[in-house]
Amino acid sequence: MLQSKIFSKTAKEAPKDEPSKNARLLEQAGYVQKVMAGVYNYLPLGTRVLQKIENLVRQEMSAVGNEVFMPSLHPKENWLATGRWNSVDVLFKIKSIHGFEYALGPTHEEIVAPAARRAINSYRDLPLSVFQIQTKFRDEARAKSGLLRGREFRMKDMYSFHADQADLDRYYAEVTEIYKKVFARLGLKSILTEASGGSFSKYSHEFQVELENGEDTIYICKKCGLAKNKEIFSGPDEQCTNCGKTEWREAQAAEVGNIFKLGTKFTVPFNIKFVDKDGAEQPVLMGCYGIGTTRLMGLIAELFNDSKGLIWPENVAPFQVHLIALQSKDPAAQKSLQKHAETLYKSLQKAGVEVLLDDRDESAGVKFNDADLLGIPWRMVVSEKTLAADSIELKNRAAAEAKLVKINKAAAQFTQ
Amino acid sequence: MLQSKIFSKTAKEAPKDEPSKNARLLEQAGYVQKVMAGVYNYLPLGTRVLQKIENLVRQEMSAVGNEVFMPSLHPKENWLATGRWNSVDVLFKIKSIHGFEYALGPTHEEIVAPAARRAINSYRDLPLSVFQIQTKFRDEARAKSGLLRGREFRMKDMYSFHADQADLDRYYAEVTEIYKKVFARLGLKSILTEASGGSFSKYSHEFQVELENGEDTIYICKKCGLAKNKEIFSGPDEQCTNCGKTEWREAQAAEVGNIFKLGTKFTVPFNIKFVDKDGAEQPVLMGCYGIGTTRLMGLIAELFNDSKGLIWPENVAPFQVHLIALQSKDPAAQKSLQKHAETLYKSLQKAGVEVLLDDRDESAGVKFNDADLLGIPWRMVVSEKTLAADSIELKNRAAAEAKLVKINKAAAQFTQ
Repeated sequence: MLQSKIFSKTAKEAPKDEPSKNARLLEQAGYVQKVMAGVYNYLPLGTRVLQKIENLVRQEMSAVGNEVFMPSLHPKENWLATGRWNSVDVLFKIKSIHGFEYALGPTHEEIVAPAARRAINSYRDLPLSVFQIQTKFRDEARAKSGLLRGREFRMKDMYSFHADQADLDRYYAEVTEIYKKVFARLGLKSILTEASGGSFSKYSHEFQVELENGEDTIYICKKCGLAKNKEIFSGPDEQCTNCGKTEWREAQAAEVGNIFKLGTKFTVPFNIKFVDKDGAEQPVLMGCYGIGTTRLMGLIAELFNDSKGLIWPENVAPFQVHLIALQSKDPAAQKSLQKHAETLYKSLQKAGVEVLLDDRDESAGVKFNDADLLGIPWRMVVSEKTLAADSIELKNRAAAEAKLVKINKAAAQFTQ
Repeated sequence: MLQSKIFSKTAKEAPKDEPSKNARLLEQAGYVQKVMAGVYNYLPLGTRVLQKIENLVRQEMSAVGNEVFMPSLHPKENWLATGRWNSVDVLFKIKSIHGFEYALGPTHEEIVAPAARRAINSYRDLPLSVFQIQTKFRDEARAKSGLLRGREFRMKDMYSFHADQADLDRYYAEVTEIYKKVFARLGLKSILTEASGGSFSKYSHEFQVELENGEDTIYICKKCGLAKNKEIFSGPDEQCTNCGKTEWREAQAAEVGNIFKLGTKFTVPFNIKFVDKDGAEQPVLMGCYGIGTTRLMGLIAELFNDSKGLIWPENVAPFQVHLIALQSKDPAAQKSLQKHAETLYKSLQKAGVEVLLDDRDESAGVKFNDADLLGIPWRMVVSEKTLAADSIELKNRAAAEAKLVKINKAAAQFTQ
């Protein structure tokens, strides 16, 4: 991609009215642009990061479910059926000029449960699991945490259907492992955290990542690493569910995923039953599993940066290589430089390397400052000094003549 | 993918209350499921078709623009600024419980134009072009055409920004060619059709596909193939803009894309200007370019089918191969059959072939009928007769023992 075409410019300073660090960094660097509180444009660089996160999540979830795509407009009656039309205070409600009323989906139990009715008749149809990656809406009172809490945001949500508790438990454990893997691949240290389980199970589980200004307070078992959310923590004498110890460390954290055994909470209102081996009708059991993908992007930005700007982990960086073409005041040298940079750009692309070429008519200082702000892991510089060996093949040239700078900071954070 | 896990079952008959052919076929085959009028769940097979269409569109558009992702919640003031808060009758309006008012985006000029302000200062920043693939909302009075006209649907929309009319014209011509290519790759014969240009240009252009029950009436020049939409057709004596002839053929058609020179219609309200080479401020010119991706899916279903069901063109088929494992009443033979089918399934996947394995406990008749309904281009059958040469390598086995059936109907339509 050409840097002159990324539909944004870096700003000299972070936006002053923005209390959230992730939004300050992402806006200043031109990854996102605030449309209004809690609602963002994802510009070309931000869209690439988001797609990398979502594709990684998609890849891992495909091992345990099939992808679907459900709508954002939900019939009012589905939300009345579960009693949530009136009980969910962040629910956006829409009145059509044609007299219809809709909810704007903040989650999809009210859609996926009735959809399951056609797919499930007998025990032979179970288990089943579907996931989607989709936009969600919440009428939040405050939206001051940038991408960590939006009025419009993106999520991967998965829903599973089971014949009995043992099968739900088995699947839930399987998803727990996959979630750990997803967060590890994104460079995040996730903490499995027990949280309130509602009326159908003792606990639900959250995946929390430590963050100084995170919204959640959690207590981490010093012995085994399992945590409890403050909402269910009875005090320092509480025993760890896993290892029985009573040594806790308090931490602030941000939730990046949660998993929940819903039992029959949504299958009963929609009458989702199956016929068991003995020919008897039984209610289907259900689980749900969420990962906020835009929230992940915000969290990664919040964690991986230094005073100069962002430092993307390689798995989610918008590009692998930032190719910086410096300018020359001599017209002939400038022509050579430009040609050289373009050749290198095309060669790298041909070799399957994702490259951002800084083709702008700007000084070296501006280009390096912007590169620090953008935080692409690898940097190559084309300058007058690198022009001599123009005919060397790319593989050697890259090593021999371009100034190759590894931004090691990201790697260092990985291996901490 | 295993057919037992596709979160849908085929129906013996098409839904009776569904007036639209595409929705009847897609619902009966379990690609989509109606949530309410004009709003659909895309089930695993349907999601795959939609993603194939969207990835094909993404690939082609990336040659002329960078991908972004803009929100569905739009600030009311942006729509007031262009006067469309009150003039667009299909605009969904939302009142937040916190006192905010939003539009639910049916299109994104009101978002992309102000976003361009930060990206554009001087003539050196132009041209610029961004596209997104995203969900749109329209408060339609009637939604009876299945995926051809939804209240919630998916679109690729692109917006370009230019310093002068010549550059807008150049880019518009370039996109015209890319659109033709997109539709051709999808197996569609698109007809470039002149339509009303609004106040800023003589014509806009639609890409129409002939369809018996299509919403549009167009007049196609018998000499050169250019068409005019009925809305601007003055009668049989009208001369073709392209070749000057006056021989027209009337046809019904469905619009699959449109392109529009917007001029300064949206850049003036948002004060989007650039500084030209002489240092003078000039308004930026704008173009917009749309392709309905869910509509394309509906249209392809409507066009490519026979009395037995769907017949997907290979580029958009959910899978390349439908592997049908027949059952045996003999337990030992059944075990072998099953093992054989699973080995073949894994071998094909390993070879990069997209395969749907019919692993269900159903009769051959049910399986073949469902396969006809699903319309996957290639079919392989594993039956007792095909068990002898179990150790032959896949390449030979596929030819030698599995009954390979090419559904030639799709190919025939391609080459008509």
